[in-house]
Amino acid sequence: MGVVVQKYGGTSVGSVERIKNVARRVVETRRQGNQVVVVVSAMSGETDRLITLANEINPRHNRREHDMLVSSGEQVSISLLAMAIEGLGEKAVSLLGSQVSIKTDSDHSRARITEIGGERIRRALADDYIVVVAGFQGVNEAGDITTLGRGGSDTSAVAVAAALPADVCEIYTDVDGIYTTDPNICDKARKLERISYEEMLELASLGAKVLQIRSVEFAKKYGIPLHVRSSFSDSQGTIVCREEECMEKAIVSGVAYSKSDAKITICGIPDRPGIAASIFTAIADQGIVVDMIIQNISDEGLTDLTFTVPKLDYDQALEALEKFNREVGARQIVGDRNIAKVSIVGIGMRTHANVASRMFQALARENINIMMISTSEIKVSCVIEEKYTELAVRVLHDEFDLAGEGTNEDD
Amino acid sequence: MGVVVQKYGGTSVGSVERIKNVARRVVETRRQGNQVVVVVSAMSGETDRLITLANEINPRHNRREHDMLVSSGEQVSISLLAMAIEGLGEKAVSLLGSQVSIKTDSDHSRARITEIGGERIRRALADDYIVVVAGFQGVNEAGDITTLGRGGSDTSAVAVAAALPADVCEIYTDVDGIYTTDPNICDKARKLERISYEEMLELASLGAKVLQIRSVEFAKKYGIPLHVRSSFSDSQGTIVCREEECMEKAIVSGVAYSKSDAKITICGIPDRPGIAASIFTAIADQGIVVDMIIQNISDEGLTDLTFTVPKLDYDQALEALEKFNREVGARQIVGDRNIAKVSIVGIGMRTHANVASRMFQALARENINIMMISTSEIKVSCVIEEKYTELAVRVLHDEFDLAGEGTNEDD
Repeated sequence: MGVVVQKYGGTSVGSVERIKNVARRVVETRRQGNQVVVVVSAMSGETDRLITLANEINPRHNRREHDMLVSSGEQVSISLLAMAIEGLGEKAVSLLGSQVSIKTDSDHSRARITEIGGERIRRALADDYIVVVAGFQGVNEAGDITTLGRGGSDTSAVAVAAALPADVCEIYTDVDGIYTTDPNICDKARKLERISYEEMLELASLGAKVLQIRSVEFAKKYGIPLHVRSSFSDSQGTIVCREEECMEKAIVSGVAYSKSDAKITICGIPDRPGIAASIFTAIADQGIVVDMIIQNISDEGLTDLTFTVPKLDYDQALEALEKFNREVGARQIVGDRNIAKVSIVGIGMRTHANVASRMFQALARENINIMMISTSEIKVSCVIEEKYTELAVRVLHDEFDLAGEGTNEDD
Repeated sequence: MGVVVQKYGGTSVGSVERIKNVARRVVETRRQGNQVVVVVSAMSGETDRLITLANEINPRHNRREHDMLVSSGEQVSISLLAMAIEGLGEKAVSLLGSQVSIKTDSDHSRARITEIGGERIRRALADDYIVVVAGFQGVNEAGDITTLGRGGSDTSAVAVAAALPADVCEIYTDVDGIYTTDPNICDKARKLERISYEEMLELASLGAKVLQIRSVEFAKKYGIPLHVRSSFSDSQGTIVCREEECMEKAIVSGVAYSKSDAKITICGIPDRPGIAASIFTAIADQGIVVDMIIQNISDEGLTDLTFTVPKLDYDQALEALEKFNREVGARQIVGDRNIAKVSIVGIGMRTHANVASRMFQALARENINIMMISTSEIKVSCVIEEKYTELAVRVLHDEFDLAGEGTNEDD
């Protein structure tokens, strides 16, 4: 008996049959004695259909109108789901972002939630309704519809859960939980029972795409447990919760990888104060986000600077740098698209000193050269040649014994 | 130079090409120096697509959710049209019924507008925007989305025009104006330059489907001239305006017909006070609207009562009456589906006495038997056998010389 928020993605409500299936799950949860709020995305394919129309009409359409357009998708899915729930004999009411009062800033198509009113939902719950809320959308101060960016429904769900507050926020998706690594490239990958918010944040930012990062930040901030599970099965998924509630406290919880970055090195630039700042300002001016940065020690007043940018922005970044370099005069600028980042994540690292060296040794045994290293309190990332990605993931998965149920203590 | 409200139906915005076409018209009107507000319906086919989905999910879905669902259709068309207008270099902003503040009662799926705020639109116009408003939809006191019923976008447009106020409300449709009768059955049908609100109201209620009746009532109440014209050509359409502004003052302006009613006669019922009331209460209790009613003179304390109901409700009406008759004991109940109603409408009738008799004579000359007659100040309707409908329309069109440009004075 509690307040449960359930979030279903576009695939889960992608057809009449699937909507009915979601309705059955929702009603079941209700009949177990819970108050239920459901947050849904647009039916899969719908958002793409609308964007195609928009691009045919005006490829450079403005973002306010873009949000007005695509937010119609959730309006369809919430009303259909409410109808399906009523068809099973429970009361249901659908609510738009504006009706729930999901307030956001005005940064259309990637707006951030600033405030959320739980009042209307609480009232409907008290009147025995199952409440179906449109994910992905909010409303700004002017009363215009905004959207939260792809995957924003996760954040909507957690924000609603925080506003109520709910006892748990269940994120239904097409995978059945969070894995120690990608099961597609490592068949020993194991589903985790629990993982901490911090670890999940690292995994999400490292390329594990199960949850939108902001939704995890929200959940952490308000202490809402997330339950990531499959909408196509009844099995338990993975609980994302406070570190204290994670029994395993594994040194390493997961191995993540990403092939979406490229590497750029500026060789032989004058090593004087402000040079790095001006380089990264030139790149940031293009709206490009830099991930890892390494600066080598200075040699005869010259230094090398290496960093990674999204592959999509690689050409643009190089162009900006060439232009910038006419003023600075570095020796050369070299780039490499064929890289990957592999990372190990675990809260146990805080108390274990030799985790990074174990990682480097394991990679070295396979002759995988490490090009860049970046660490945080609970993460170590290495940039390697892209062709070694899968091998590296499997080696690290073995090294830290992630397939077993143990705590992967080193010997 | 003025404030122009233009309304485009679903067919006019039914594809990317057509939306672009509407945008061109709108921009042209703007560049002639007008402030322009555009009211649009959902892209044709979209509402039906959504209703099909709803019926697959739950054939008995409730009307609040129905409105939530179908109102998404205009959200798509307004944002696409705003994008198309911007593509042509003018500023545009789309607004939902709730954003314009089109307030309605809570009678979902056939709500009535109670109040409309012009403030947001006026502000946008002052900022040089072309304003694109979602037709067909409003919002009730609770903040729930309502819809005005099929054809409700006409009413939205006129209500917006009244709230501003606008100088004219142009209704773009797939015909190029109001005709003296249906051109499909009478090739002499002539497009009217002007027609009074009163005549238009009669024609609309008699089955001419160009305008929603309520939109004409609104226009009449607030004195907004309507210009009914084709979205596929540039030719002048028909102006619907105050009687004083109609130069023609024709005795008969148009001939309308309807095949959508059926006739029921209750023979030999006791002629005592209250009997008619109880009969029509029994029918009204079924939600059935009765149109014409005739009661014959009483004969030996028994009378006959004949009336028409929509064909769609015919079986249900008969059933209700059979049940009712067990208590009353009328001699018999007979029905006839094969009827039609032909009507002549014209403000000149007020001052011309023999219009009705000319109509009866014209029908008699063709041996068309008149079953029922109903008159108003500016209309005469006759119920005849359905098979004579087209013939009757042509005969009446000739009798009152509607093909000519004259004032069809009788000789």
